[in-house]
Amino acid sequence: MRTKVAIIGAGPAGLLLGRLLDKAGIETVILERRSQDYVLGRIRAGVLEQGTVELLDRADVSERLHADGLVHDGVELCFDGDKHRFNFRELIGRTVTVYGQTEVTRDLMQARDDSGAKTIYEAENVSLHDFDSDKPKVRYLKDGVEHELACDFIAGCDGYHGVARASVPAGSIRTFERVYPFGWLGILVDKPPVAEELIYAHHERGFALCSMRSPTRSRYYVQVPADEQVQEWSDDRFWDELRRRVDEETADNLVTGPSIEKSIAPLRSFVAEPLRFGRLFLAGDAAHIVPPTGAKGLNLAASDVGALAEAFIAFYADRSSAGIDGYSARVLSRIWKAERFSWWMTSILHTFPNKDAFSRRIQRAEFDYLRSSEAAARSLAENYTGLPM
Amino acid sequence: MRTKVAIIGAGPAGLLLGRLLDKAGIETVILERRSQDYVLGRIRAGVLEQGTVELLDRADVSERLHADGLVHDGVELCFDGDKHRFNFRELIGRTVTVYGQTEVTRDLMQARDDSGAKTIYEAENVSLHDFDSDKPKVRYLKDGVEHELACDFIAGCDGYHGVARASVPAGSIRTFERVYPFGWLGILVDKPPVAEELIYAHHERGFALCSMRSPTRSRYYVQVPADEQVQEWSDDRFWDELRRRVDEETADNLVTGPSIEKSIAPLRSFVAEPLRFGRLFLAGDAAHIVPPTGAKGLNLAASDVGALAEAFIAFYADRSSAGIDGYSARVLSRIWKAERFSWWMTSILHTFPNKDAFSRRIQRAEFDYLRSSEAAARSLAENYTGLPM
Repeated sequence: MRTKVAIIGAGPAGLLLGRLLDKAGIETVILERRSQDYVLGRIRAGVLEQGTVELLDRADVSERLHADGLVHDGVELCFDGDKHRFNFRELIGRTVTVYGQTEVTRDLMQARDDSGAKTIYEAENVSLHDFDSDKPKVRYLKDGVEHELACDFIAGCDGYHGVARASVPAGSIRTFERVYPFGWLGILVDKPPVAEELIYAHHERGFALCSMRSPTRSRYYVQVPADEQVQEWSDDRFWDELRRRVDEETADNLVTGPSIEKSIAPLRSFVAEPLRFGRLFLAGDAAHIVPPTGAKGLNLAASDVGALAEAFIAFYADRSSAGIDGYSARVLSRIWKAERFSWWMTSILHTFPNKDAFSRRIQRAEFDYLRSSEAAARSLAENYTGLPM
Repeated sequence: MRTKVAIIGAGPAGLLLGRLLDKAGIETVILERRSQDYVLGRIRAGVLEQGTVELLDRADVSERLHADGLVHDGVELCFDGDKHRFNFRELIGRTVTVYGQTEVTRDLMQARDDSGAKTIYEAENVSLHDFDSDKPKVRYLKDGVEHELACDFIAGCDGYHGVARASVPAGSIRTFERVYPFGWLGILVDKPPVAEELIYAHHERGFALCSMRSPTRSRYYVQVPADEQVQEWSDDRFWDELRRRVDEETADNLVTGPSIEKSIAPLRSFVAEPLRFGRLFLAGDAAHIVPPTGAKGLNLAASDVGALAEAFIAFYADRSSAGIDGYSARVLSRIWKAERFSWWMTSILHTFPNKDAFSRRIQRAEFDYLRSSEAAARSLAENYTGLPM
């Protein structure tokens, strides 16, 4: 079998890259280790930057997003019970849209099915070969039979634990990592969200986030120690803890109910450099991880594959390799800015074990400065709604 | 002896407070442990915020400042040799003025001499009494004779090591501190500065700063370990190290010469809370210390005493205690924002021992974000030229 671009991973990064190339007439095959249902069962982020929405518009997969997505003009930050709203639309004329990653994935899968482009699910033992030549190949097992996919390029969109980054010789790649000493305990509940917009709360007891997936489905988080066990947290304990960390109005208005999902996610920052190795390119979680504070994970994946699609399109249109040669530096510049913002949001909003009293006052000063300065609020707004692609 | 406000310390904070009260017809006595020449011999900061200049204008002590001070429209930041200019005037319509603290002190001393207000230099064994009553007193020895100064209020403007903060009962005050694992080795040289504006440089080898006092006198700094000995640094070693840390253009244009002063200053952040104890008020370095990155020390002292003068003036004009009751909260809000900025400037520009590779990339990302975002540049500009009083 032969294709132009072999895409490893059918998450939103791989599917969006496939879609953008498909619309440009460039043939792709997606290989995915898991089943389609497994991929759709993952519960992930839900805040789309305006640029991500625009990219999904260009990919012609945003009809349902515009029908069901919730456009948010701002967010609220709450510090020890003091709440302040940042109105992004007023500050910089931009917004974000709440629309679950699962739904983005579903829309992209539907579009790929409609176009007839090939996705091979449950492709086992995927291995990458000869990407240092101009004849790379991908081998995999499907239903016990070995296959080889010859291609011009390989796009590694298979996440942090995927085979793509692991295939790069150790001496050719450098990685940067920060592990935070806490995680997020999240629950999903079929009750209306406590507020129309997201509330990010800092409290001495720890961070909390009031988020949502739809007008009837809410997502709440509280910071917990990194080694916490989810079984320790009954729904009642979760709600009590959440109420303690937010302002009084939010605590009073909270509509609780039985959790339909409850899990703990660790917080980590990670970046690999570079992101191009001959004819292999890394994008999305294969290239970088951000802590969820700031909601940058899915959005960074989208901007990565937007740039990668442009590079491939330019290559096939006029055999120009400028785009593929510049891919790594171009996206890393934006990735590091998003890493900085995610690290900063994480740093000001969480309670750090063993941090001194000076550090807590600095966190408070960040909040007080943010709510007193239009320049600082604009900086928050442009980062949250997404820096230029 | 009796006065309205006893001011401890004849540095710029105490002198400016005395001047502002003097102009409002409120009698003060300043007690200073050192001699006048000793106070004038201290070499300190030299960058005045626009608000500080305006306060000195109102105090009618800015004639020489406007004649000799150098108005700077911006600063340059340099990161591993990449230099970017931030034009404050264009960004927010504000500027800073380079005029040495020694000169500010000299102008204030001259004005005080002219007005006939009393300053007692070489006042020994100063002790504060009864400031929890409405009849506070200050005792001191002068030429071996004990004196008592009765007053309505005591203003502690006597610096970090002074008697004022030390007189507060330990249970009534809370302090916040951060000690940085490095210091600044600074030299003063009678040569023209390498550039018209200040250059703050980050380099893997450490921070460097190219500053000046006048068109013919320059001040340069390099970051050194906290336990470094100044004797280890010949002038030649200093110049070689400075050249390595700045961009090529700056290194080439550096005009070197014999140092006329060379010393190492530690870097520390410190804040005391609250700043009012009955009829004792703390201001300037007695209340807080900032690391010199960002040049906030003298400017914070000025805004403290500006607020304190207003409070006293309101008290004597209409016996309103609203100003003196609100002094601590009012100035601490601004102090913490300046502490945040000074900490942030210090954090992004210095090389920290034992910091991981992720942290260095975040420093770089701060620089890249700053030079790519108008909102971020405006935030830098408003902090550097001074947040609202």
